Amino acid sequence: MNDNPQDSRRPCVMGSSRSPSSSWDAAVAAEITGALAETYRDDMGISHVDGGNMPQRDAVVAILEKILEILFPGYTGRHLVTRAALEFTTGDLVNAVYHGLAEQVRRALAYRCQVECCGGCDCVRQADDAVIALLRRLPALRGLLKSDVQAALDGDPATSSTDEIIIAYPGLKAIAVHRVAHELYRAGIPLIPRVMSEYAHTVTGIDINPGAQIGGSFFIDHGTGVVIGETAILGESVKIYQGVTLGALSFPKDACGRLIKGAKRHPNIEDRVTIYAGATILGDITVGHDSVVGGNVWLTESVEPFSRITNAKPDLSIKQRRP
Amino acid sequence: MNDNPQDSRRPCVMGSSRSPSSSWDAAVAAEITGALAETYRDDMGISHVDGGNMPQRDAVVAILEKILEILFPGYTGRHLVTRAALEFTTGDLVNAVYHGLAEQVRRALAYRCQVECCGGCDCVRQADDAVIALLRRLPALRGLLKSDVQAALDGDPATSSTDEIIIAYPGLKAIAVHRVAHELYRAGIPLIPRVMSEYAHTVTGIDINPGAQIGGSFFIDHGTGVVIGETAILGESVKIYQGVTLGALSFPKDACGRLIKGAKRHPNIEDRVTIYAGATILGDITVGHDSVVGGNVWLTESVEPFSRITNAKPDLSIKQRRP
Amino acid sequence: MNDNPQDSRRPCVMGSSRSPSSSWDAAVAAEITGALAETYRDDMGISHVDGGNMPQRDAVVAILEKILEILFPGYTGRHLVTRAALEFTTGDLVNAVYHGLAEQVRRALAYRCQVECCGGCDCVRQADDAVIALLRRLPALRGLLKSDVQAALDGDPATSSTDEIIIAYPGLKAIAVHRVAHELYRAGIPLIPRVMSEYAHTVTGIDINPGAQIGGSFFIDHGTGVVIGETAILGESVKIYQGVTLGALSFPKDACGRLIKGAKRHPNIEDRVTIYAGATILGDITVGHDSVVGGNVWLTESVEPFSRITNAKPDLSIKQRRP
Repeated sequence: MNDNPQDSRRPCVMGSSRSPSSSWDAAVAAEITGALAETYRDDMGISHVDGGNMPQRDAVVAILEKILEILFPGYTGRHLVTRAALEFTTGDLVNAVYHGLAEQVRRALAYRCQVECCGGCDCVRQADDAVIALLRRLPALRGLLKSDVQAALDGDPATSSTDEIIIAYPGLKAIAVHRVAHELYRAGIPLIPRVMSEYAHTVTGIDINPGAQIGGSFFIDHGTGVVIGETAILGESVKIYQGVTLGALSFPKDACGRLIKGAKRHPNIEDRVTIYAGATILGDITVGHDSVVGGNVWLTESVEPFSRITNAKPDLSIKQRRP
Repeated sequence: MNDNPQDSRRPCVMGSSRSPSSSWDAAVAAEITGALAETYRDDMGISHVDGGNMPQRDAVVAILEKILEILFPGYTGRHLVTRAALEFTTGDLVNAVYHGLAEQVRRALAYRCQVECCGGCDCVRQADDAVIALLRRLPALRGLLKSDVQAALDGDPATSSTDEIIIAYPGLKAIAVHRVAHELYRAGIPLIPRVMSEYAHTVTGIDINPGAQIGGSFFIDHGTGVVIGETAILGESVKIYQGVTLGALSFPKDACGRLIKGAKRHPNIEDRVTIYAGATILGDITVGHDSVVGGNVWLTESVEPFSRITNAKPDLSIKQRRP
Repeated sequence: MNDNPQDSRRPCVMGSSRSPSSSWDAAVAAEITGALAETYRDDMGISHVDGGNMPQRDAVVAILEKILEILFPGYTGRHLVTRAALEFTTGDLVNAVYHGLAEQVRRALAYRCQVECCGGCDCVRQADDAVIALLRRLPALRGLLKSDVQAALDGDPATSSTDEIIIAYPGLKAIAVHRVAHELYRAGIPLIPRVMSEYAHTVTGIDINPGAQIGGSFFIDHGTGVVIGETAILGESVKIYQGVTLGALSFPKDACGRLIKGAKRHPNIEDRVTIYAGATILGDITVGHDSVVGGNVWLTESVEPFSRITNAKPDLSIKQRRP
């Protein structure tokens, strides 16, 4: 009870929403609810009412984590993976991923149908094909990811353990999620790939658009603040550090001045290029193979293979302050 | 059992904490517990014992997610929102938010009362008023958020779907949470707004102080590393990219050299200003409307409207290395 | 059912994976499972089959959160901490942390034994010693953390509440986790310290290698993008802002060109140094005490005490665009 706040023996925290001083009642609740419902009725473009079943972010993330268990068996430690039970454990995961992901992909396709009023498209078949194609690609993705783990081991003096890399490194998680999301992006699946990549962005600080094409033996160290755009193309054995942006310099527009969606606007990074922390590379340019881009470099023009690009020695001012 | 670690047929992992080689016992536990309790007794300023019920971070976050469901109905996909059930679904959420948030706000206010020994203040009434005022603002916040979603659609060539923006874009989530937290900040509620904004910071990498004043049609692309300070003021249709800081150049101090809390120290960004990745704008300065601040620019002075600020062409050194 | 996609009265979302158009069956599942199992059999270096019980990331994180409850009693608000029940509450937590962490540390040690075929080592004893030593250090860590909280209060004009700092500030969370992880790093425990530090990295965007040596009264403001390397050494009362890197300039290699793991390669930051946002300090250099490193500075040479290092006034180009 807090109806007598002056009574210092009674800490006001004891008050409850049912205390006399509460002004919340059915009328207030109804008034606010009505006002909100009103804003749902007009088409404000940010309501999703009677809109069919959207894909569910939480469900997509749970399925994605299962896919990562398939890609790195035994590393979550959630259950001991034994050679004896291997087929069973894996089979269960594969089935669970198929059914869960097919459902979410169907939702995404069906929702697009509604929006685009395409009338009839076989969302079930399309979802099936995309999910089965993804599952068939998993062994090949494991090969790519093995090369990524090796690249991290070769590139980081702070670790001597592939297990540490697989269990703990954000860069590897971002790459693994990207390799999965990219398969669905290539299959033309809406929404789901971006939900996956933004989940990786949330847990790693690394923002790789599902459209980016990335070769094997890719290593991202530290990674926070890395941005890789939709139409970027990276070769083999590329190494990048935290805060690197592979972005767009300007956005192509159509005659009406509207952005042209999906146009090529991000860099091409050839094999064995290293890009140090904070470098920004913008536009549809090419960084030739075996080049090194120094920290904080701002690059908007193509460079030849074997280039070493650095900022001119920074003009530092170093003053002594009187102790 | 691992009491004989030399026995190589027995992997040492089999050992258990009850094995003879364990030195943990009641005495050790009591000794450590006693030493810790000792540090709790003295006022180390980082203990919270007998301190009444603090707000609970987890509870605040759960309520915040419910508020986001009210602001973007149907997007979590947690339940299908139908026009028929709209009033009921919304009414339930509104009631749940009121009761949950009022409780947390009361805890925050009551705790401040204790700290400041204010004796008697009607925390229940104050909490009620603040929460009800927030709920009454939600329809207006939906209007603002609709303009933010449209700004993202217009500004990002990588998407053509408002649904993708609402479900997946970290920038929109950070803005939505900020618009809610800012209402409670304006109402003078302690702790809760910052808990909300740091939750958004955790999941998006975007750090917007609840005090910042931000106009409509606000778009943050990628977002990781963005910092917007407590006294920053942003106009309409501002667009910023990852790594942008709107910060303080120096901190006003009082006669005793103590920081003056809350003094105006962050930039004013006028309407239709675009700020590219990594730019740093510091101090209580004004960037005139329709200006463009280039990537990595370091700006500490006001600029006129329609300014285009860029770093002088970077003095790059490009050397060829012998293949 | 969606076998007749042309029937526009039937939204295709109604289709299910059991609909005629689904091509998923036992044969497909078996084929994919077999292909995956095949890749597990060869040693791809990213499988962990029959590999004993790895440490479990989720369990380590849950234990870490308990340790934080011991370090900051009463702040999670998960349960009211009363002076009366203090010994009991604390004793329960201490026991839970001992048993849980000892198990995880044993897994990590035992796994390393397998990998290195060390034959017999007393993993149980080693784990016990390390965990008990950590628990014995907690009172001292509380002393350090109190100084860190005070440093945040003195350094940030946006707050006047130690409670807000403890409940909400990512910088403090990153420091607290680091101080715990560093104890296990010093004890030579594999995997666990890095799992802890990468958890902090995920929730704060601050990447502090467990090896870094950091003095008291340490304050990180905002923090996203901060990177502190394994062999960095920081004195007392160091203050750093978002996007600061204390990294390596080059990696020492052995005669065979392989990276030498663990070699000293990161900066030494002496007492009372402040490093502003985006500064990059690389290599085994020393920044003398009471120095100030300006925003975006790129520093690769040692500087004397009381230095003030800033970039030469940026050569900005400010053009007016015709309204």
